[in-house]
Amino acid sequence: MAEITKEELLAKAKKPAQDSMKLHAFYGGKMQTAPKCQVRDINDFAVYYTPGVAEPCRAIQADESRINELTNRGNTVAVVSDGTRVLGLGDIGPKAGYPVMEGKALLFKHLGGVDAVPICLGTKDPDEIIQAVKWLQPSFAGINLEDIANPKCFYILDKLREEAEIPVWHDDQQGTATVVLAGLYSALDIVGKKISEVTIAQLGIGGAGTAVTRLLIKAGVPAGNIRVVDLVDGKSTILTNDLDLEKLFKYRGEMLSKTNAGNLKGGISEALTGTDVMISFMKSGPGVIKPEQIKLMAKDAICFPCANPIPEIWPWECLEAGARIVGTGRSDFPNQVNNSIGFPAIFRGVLDVRAKTITDGMCLVAARTLAQYAKERGTEKDICPRMDEPESFIRVAVEVGMEAQKEGIAEITISREDLRKKVETVINGSRAVHDALVNAGCIAPAVTD
Amino acid sequence: MAEITKEELLAKAKKPAQDSMKLHAFYGGKMQTAPKCQVRDINDFAVYYTPGVAEPCRAIQADESRINELTNRGNTVAVVSDGTRVLGLGDIGPKAGYPVMEGKALLFKHLGGVDAVPICLGTKDPDEIIQAVKWLQPSFAGINLEDIANPKCFYILDKLREEAEIPVWHDDQQGTATVVLAGLYSALDIVGKKISEVTIAQLGIGGAGTAVTRLLIKAGVPAGNIRVVDLVDGKSTILTNDLDLEKLFKYRGEMLSKTNAGNLKGGISEALTGTDVMISFMKSGPGVIKPEQIKLMAKDAICFPCANPIPEIWPWECLEAGARIVGTGRSDFPNQVNNSIGFPAIFRGVLDVRAKTITDGMCLVAARTLAQYAKERGTEKDICPRMDEPESFIRVAVEVGMEAQKEGIAEITISREDLRKKVETVINGSRAVHDALVNAGCIAPAVTD
Repeated sequence: MAEITKEELLAKAKKPAQDSMKLHAFYGGKMQTAPKCQVRDINDFAVYYTPGVAEPCRAIQADESRINELTNRGNTVAVVSDGTRVLGLGDIGPKAGYPVMEGKALLFKHLGGVDAVPICLGTKDPDEIIQAVKWLQPSFAGINLEDIANPKCFYILDKLREEAEIPVWHDDQQGTATVVLAGLYSALDIVGKKISEVTIAQLGIGGAGTAVTRLLIKAGVPAGNIRVVDLVDGKSTILTNDLDLEKLFKYRGEMLSKTNAGNLKGGISEALTGTDVMISFMKSGPGVIKPEQIKLMAKDAICFPCANPIPEIWPWECLEAGARIVGTGRSDFPNQVNNSIGFPAIFRGVLDVRAKTITDGMCLVAARTLAQYAKERGTEKDICPRMDEPESFIRVAVEVGMEAQKEGIAEITISREDLRKKVETVINGSRAVHDALVNAGCIAPAVTD
Repeated sequence: MAEITKEELLAKAKKPAQDSMKLHAFYGGKMQTAPKCQVRDINDFAVYYTPGVAEPCRAIQADESRINELTNRGNTVAVVSDGTRVLGLGDIGPKAGYPVMEGKALLFKHLGGVDAVPICLGTKDPDEIIQAVKWLQPSFAGINLEDIANPKCFYILDKLREEAEIPVWHDDQQGTATVVLAGLYSALDIVGKKISEVTIAQLGIGGAGTAVTRLLIKAGVPAGNIRVVDLVDGKSTILTNDLDLEKLFKYRGEMLSKTNAGNLKGGISEALTGTDVMISFMKSGPGVIKPEQIKLMAKDAICFPCANPIPEIWPWECLEAGARIVGTGRSDFPNQVNNSIGFPAIFRGVLDVRAKTITDGMCLVAARTLAQYAKERGTEKDICPRMDEPESFIRVAVEVGMEAQKEGIAEITISREDLRKKVETVINGSRAVHDALVNAGCIAPAVTD
């Protein structure tokens, strides 16, 4: 990898920003609604609307589950945000967050064939957000929480997973954790280490860091092998049970108390000393983690500095300092660890078997399937699948759907073969919708310099 | 008009019901999401999503009104219902009401180029419905309330029109009133009577009847000239000030107290005696109103028995009893009085000038424009425009948008000529979306026997 300066990288990053303003204004947004049925003439409105529509209404009244068969509700997900933690922009409010939610809806449709609706809420109160989601349930087959500040995001997700009747997912938590785990599975396979034996330094215990730690434990990393570092009194500190963890890190204290069995003390350097894996969601770099700290890690070290827009340490610095494998959040570096390869496929599987919830087991299966796909097509290209590898999306959807059936939380029973056909049809179909609109001139060509 | 028996009519009505179940199941619903922008390859996701999307987010944070220019929010309406009064089916709940809201979204898109999202709420409490709508405001440019029981629908609409920052419309009230008024304008023009001089018997003072009465008064019918009939102690009764009107008809007492200046007493027969116009939203007929009661009306009587699915009296019975013009809610009888010719066009105009609310003045303009269109193309075909007359939709949208500007409630200033171009482009564009999807095979042909 050629070395790039921070200045060059920031300059390069300006191009998408400029194109973004241009194209957002040109199209007036990114998503629209469209019919799913043919309207031959106005007589068809007597079938799709009154008086004919009374018949499916009656059928659903008699058996509520038929809503997913007779309407598009079964394929529809709400992307819910209060705009309190949008990208790296912070609390910019629900309106300013809308472009992100609309972008998410584009990814849901284009990559997963899922119809998603941006729902930016005019409240920041956790209990009111929970209440709003509950009121919305009749209209949606799933909820994707997005860009909600921590620690309330933990409370909201946990409460909704417990009390909602439809699957609730917080992509910044579960989606990120699933994809990081996929990258870790790939990397461990390459270096020949076992997940049950590695030690991990988890730097940053916000939304993503918490969810990653939680899922690592579910995946078989001994909790005691994880050293968590976050700011305590403004200083990067390895968390130990000497601290009042629940007070410092609300909703995470119990989990944190099980980490760091060796009661190791210190900061980033001490956490990295002798460790196999470094995963960081601290803050935009470079220079947050130093090359000499990477040098302290064990042989064949795996580094995932994931901060956006710039990793905590440049990938080439990690490699020069002895790391074997480095992944970041950026698409212009090798080994991108990118949520977008997860949630569209996971929801596809969830919706196609009408799973009642999305379990950690389903996240583990998704991560394994992603890693397996990368392994089969060769990890030298990338340790994780990329967005233009639709076969990865199809496989993840199928395996998630099969796992939901295995766990007994799927309303629909379907064979792997039939599920694959169903998933393929929908995912390919939604790309065909895009192409049809472009070819017919309904969507004008995107023009950027 | 050939006479049809109730049995024949009900048999005929079964056909859309059968086709409806078939097509709802075949398509798995009626609406989907679709991209509005071209995705050339995955690099475009860096423009539409992170990191590029941060730029429109920042722009909206700096000036919230830009959300309508940089996202599709400005063209998006929520169709909100609690499912408590769905069609003639009553309180069937939010899930069973979903097919109606999805059908409404289809009409919004196909006829008005408006992107609408079904929002069926899991609460029936009026204040909670109001709260839910307020929380949804950042995501929608307008709200279409639908199929909410009375009397709470009056309270909800009035409160939201007062407190919401976006236009709130209850189609069963304002939409129905607008289209009935359009029919009345047409009919009065034919018989040569003035709206300021006619007497009107308004039978039924539920959601539709109340809104019609309210709008008739705004349109210049002297309130005292309106005789309102509804059930009092189970008996059809002309409402007078001897009754405790607010107690009997919550939220409508004040308006009702101004009607029936002559303090006429009795039932339907007395209300119809010598009256110029009969408008009824009582209950599905036939036989609710008798031919001998129609005979009591003035010369050149105008009758709108609007109950669904069957009018309170057969149209041919009205005509034989001496009525000059008869309109109903059905598409298979002449002179259909149909909401669907109103709301898609009205919202088109509202959104294209970013009106802050939808005033009664805008409803009056819409009604006059509908009547004018029908007059120009000849009312012998029909006194109201039909759904397959797109020119009517375009004109209504333009006039509603011009009226909003005139009333000083539009954010956008635009000439009639430019507004017409804008409206035409969007309405024609949304039919093109449907055709593109059908032609490309993304929507399979609708097959019914």
